[in-house]
Amino acid sequence: MIIGIVGLGLIGGSLGLDWRAQGHQVLGVSRQTSTCQRAIERGAVDQASQDLGLLASADVIVLCPPIAQIFPVLQALTPHLSPQALVTDVGSVKTAIVLPCQDHWPRFIGGHPMAGTAEQGIEAAERGLFVGAPYVLTPTEQTLAADLDTLINLVNDLQAQVHICSPEAHDQAVAWISHLPVMVSASLIATCGQEADPQILALAQTLASSGFRDTSRVGGGNPELGLMMAQFNRTALLQSLTVYRQALDQVVQWLQQEDWAVLYQYLQRTQAERPPFL
Amino acid sequence: MIIGIVGLGLIGGSLGLDWRAQGHQVLGVSRQTSTCQRAIERGAVDQASQDLGLLASADVIVLCPPIAQIFPVLQALTPHLSPQALVTDVGSVKTAIVLPCQDHWPRFIGGHPMAGTAEQGIEAAERGLFVGAPYVLTPTEQTLAADLDTLINLVNDLQAQVHICSPEAHDQAVAWISHLPVMVSASLIATCGQEADPQILALAQTLASSGFRDTSRVGGGNPELGLMMAQFNRTALLQSLTVYRQALDQVVQWLQQEDWAVLYQYLQRTQAERPPFL
Repeated sequence: MIIGIVGLGLIGGSLGLDWRAQGHQVLGVSRQTSTCQRAIERGAVDQASQDLGLLASADVIVLCPPIAQIFPVLQALTPHLSPQALVTDVGSVKTAIVLPCQDHWPRFIGGHPMAGTAEQGIEAAERGLFVGAPYVLTPTEQTLAADLDTLINLVNDLQAQVHICSPEAHDQAVAWISHLPVMVSASLIATCGQEADPQILALAQTLASSGFRDTSRVGGGNPELGLMMAQFNRTALLQSLTVYRQALDQVVQWLQQEDWAVLYQYLQRTQAERPPFL
Repeated sequence: MIIGIVGLGLIGGSLGLDWRAQGHQVLGVSRQTSTCQRAIERGAVDQASQDLGLLASADVIVLCPPIAQIFPVLQALTPHLSPQALVTDVGSVKTAIVLPCQDHWPRFIGGHPMAGTAEQGIEAAERGLFVGAPYVLTPTEQTLAADLDTLINLVNDLQAQVHICSPEAHDQAVAWISHLPVMVSASLIATCGQEADPQILALAQTLASSGFRDTSRVGGGNPELGLMMAQFNRTALLQSLTVYRQALDQVVQWLQQEDWAVLYQYLQRTQAERPPFL
């Protein structure tokens, strides 16, 4: 199969490495000539170009730019594609991407490989990045079964775990376990930073240990990433935040009323409910 | 110096090991004869007994039972003490302990060594547990300078970092960085567990990775510990939760109004504000 990859960073480059190793021909497009050259040198692609026209012969195209660029890239790409070309993406939100993309190119199926490293860029690309990791595909009612099968086979080539669901189900699930934690965690940092007494603030900073470190980690991460989650998964995130506020209001109420038995049951429940997520 | 330790678990046992190594005489009291025996065998104490009367000759007594037992143990202990005996504790909240304890025994000074391991009990006690760790002492206006100096010297013997503040400042600081994170984190777990669609819940559980794991860790911990924080540091925790809810409400509002520039600045600020806590 001829696979086109637009965006040769960590994800695009790692996909290319694995698929080439499986015997597929991989064509890569990047805005940077230096990235094109390194992708060829590293064996992530057979050919690379800054020109989307390189992908005219591709059977499947995987869009790996930043989320905000996925739809514009698809628009720029489609004049070059053969009508039977199947297009997918790797964005971490799905509804906001799948709806316009499928409207523009009916043979578009959303995808989200949930793997990564702390590093970015083509130099960070590695073989086997997706082994055992979840890879969500989000077909819709318009999706052709044969097209979905094609993508499932490609995901299987990566030894990733395929999960099939609607774009909306994906977005609600990642809102719970990825986007809500970022806002919860960021608000924790912002709150602690509001301590007005400099002695208490300094003491809090000194005494903070693993509990604060872990709970605040994702809230102290990349602001662009947090903003992107909010912008592109706004509906599901707002829904999650609404439920979260109700949960927090309950805790406040139990504390105000010194309802210790109920608070204890709550903490027993959260202890029991966490392991299925790990 | 003759030091008495009541409660020969991880903290009490580790204190005894270090202080004996510094040449102090250590007398231990535990409710369990087996613990007394193991504390002697492990070298954590010179003598041990179930009887608080053993501590009649102690210059300094350190109370290391669970928080709810600290005041009752002090009440049971004081008939045995010489009038000049200095008493301290190792509880993780201070105001709720220091006020009644100092009222009952004026030469009481609150203490909080912030070290620990995942293990509990005398078998987990170890030399050097407190090296480099914060050790908060919370004198009040009634505290004698000489008594505070005595405790500072003992903390220095452990090579811990002494921090001096009021009981109230301690409690507000640990509310921010320890007790608030537990409630924030527990509410995250409770919220995600409320997803009504079993397919989305299962997907969320499958897709959850390090972000959810870290943010939910302290909220999925020991329910007794979480309840204890809430019960004994209720005022400071409620204050922290109130500020936290306001921070969260702001995030919700920015999302509702799509005020992306302000949300981005907020996430930039939380990224910048986290490192001083690490």
